[in-house]
Amino acid sequence: MTFNKRYSNLLETNGTRLCVGLDTDLAWIPDHLQAESNPILAFNKAIIEATSDLCSAYKMNLAFYESAGMKGMEALQGTLEAIPEHIITIGDAKRGDIGNTADHYAQAMFEFWGFDGLTVNPYMGTDTLETYFRYEGKCIFVLALTSNPGSAQFQRITTDGKPLYVNVIDRCLEEFGVRDQLGFVVGATHPNKLGKVRSRVGPNIPLLIPGVGTQGGDAGGTVKANDGGVAFVNVSRGISKAGSGEDFVQKAREATLDFVAQLAKEDPDARVRMAEAAL
Amino acid sequence: MTFNKRYSNLLETNGTRLCVGLDTDLAWIPDHLQAESNPILAFNKAIIEATSDLCSAYKMNLAFYESAGMKGMEALQGTLEAIPEHIITIGDAKRGDIGNTADHYAQAMFEFWGFDGLTVNPYMGTDTLETYFRYEGKCIFVLALTSNPGSAQFQRITTDGKPLYVNVIDRCLEEFGVRDQLGFVVGATHPNKLGKVRSRVGPNIPLLIPGVGTQGGDAGGTVKANDGGVAFVNVSRGISKAGSGEDFVQKAREATLDFVAQLAKEDPDARVRMAEAAL
Repeated sequence: MTFNKRYSNLLETNGTRLCVGLDTDLAWIPDHLQAESNPILAFNKAIIEATSDLCSAYKMNLAFYESAGMKGMEALQGTLEAIPEHIITIGDAKRGDIGNTADHYAQAMFEFWGFDGLTVNPYMGTDTLETYFRYEGKCIFVLALTSNPGSAQFQRITTDGKPLYVNVIDRCLEEFGVRDQLGFVVGATHPNKLGKVRSRVGPNIPLLIPGVGTQGGDAGGTVKANDGGVAFVNVSRGISKAGSGEDFVQKAREATLDFVAQLAKEDPDARVRMAEAAL
Repeated sequence: MTFNKRYSNLLETNGTRLCVGLDTDLAWIPDHLQAESNPILAFNKAIIEATSDLCSAYKMNLAFYESAGMKGMEALQGTLEAIPEHIITIGDAKRGDIGNTADHYAQAMFEFWGFDGLTVNPYMGTDTLETYFRYEGKCIFVLALTSNPGSAQFQRITTDGKPLYVNVIDRCLEEFGVRDQLGFVVGATHPNKLGKVRSRVGPNIPLLIPGVGTQGGDAGGTVKANDGGVAFVNVSRGISKAGSGEDFVQKAREATLDFVAQLAKEDPDARVRMAEAAL
């Protein structure tokens, strides 16, 4: 099944473009879970159970697992096993390296971990991204315009009469656009530019949109700018840090329902299903 | 001890700017090691034993360990333990992510693994690199101009009247230049540009220079262009794949001595010591 087909099935079932970010920091896991043999895994399992009917994807940023060493690796493995099979998993790794090395990152992310999607960094050139597209049915989200203030520094600098990130988008479309596997990362903190990217790439290129919630991106504005295209609107801390005590699961579900409702307001594809989910 | 002080001690002891890349691929480890409980680790230990008096650093590209899953993590851990303490270790991870995530990459690379140096990707802006500089005595090598052909695509595009990679260098010097921790990655496949980078940054900014050997970079030209500055000239496959049978250790040592001699030819700091090493 193609990546976009899986996505449209999920939009049918769960009715939302929400992606839940599992960027779990051992430091803020509630006290009552700290005695578990693997607190990060225990926390993630609880969040997954509370949210898997209310999202289209889970995104795991590898940094949070790598910083926890071997325990982190175990947690990531267990988390991937705990996610229901029909839900899309995105490995937010932002990898980028020359050809023979990139082969190994692709193996790690798609074969060892088994992610459905992956984020990659384009700085080294499109020849360094080629290898990821050999994996059929997987989506490769190329960093275009990120959600942090520093994105102005290089990504938005003018090159050949257009910002560098538009240049990245154009070159990637040219090289990989026909393969039905190319996606882009565009931060929710730039709704105006997000709209322009959506017009440029058309409705079928998946956009991974981080930055809603803690980072300040507005859910409604993001959905409007996305204009009904294939998209994963990611919320991490806004859900997983919604509570900090024994009721963190309930707080996470409430926060998820709230984000789902915010997204649904401007989204004709989502609205009806959300009325059901809230019941 | 500062990073540069460690480097100059090593130049004194081992007399070379050679960095040995341990990018070990399970697929080409000699047959007689494949039955070991961890073939990658067994291979690396043998290469380290054969080369640690002939290099200033080991560089491990994380991709090769990640693709081998948990066994790869074990191999990386064991490899770092096997490297003599005075030799510099560089984690070639090319990480790059927003602030709170970058904190976790820094933790992973400097606290969990304990690397002395790290490669990072500047595409997301200098605000995403800030956190790495909190670790005193560590060197942060920012990708500037990489060794692959695709480096022309974005890194060498003109922005503000200069190539993007020069822009990256200038911004990083501005932000982090005074901290005695900033380094850059500049590929050996661009000797002319390498020379210009060295003039621009001065002699004390460490340059990590990949691309000599299999990738086609010329050892002598690289050393000339580096003009006596702090540098790690990396050779990976040229050493670790020099042999493929039971004599791979001897072949690796011969190849190392050969690279060391090539580097020494144009390097007044290295020449004398190398005459000794060859004996």
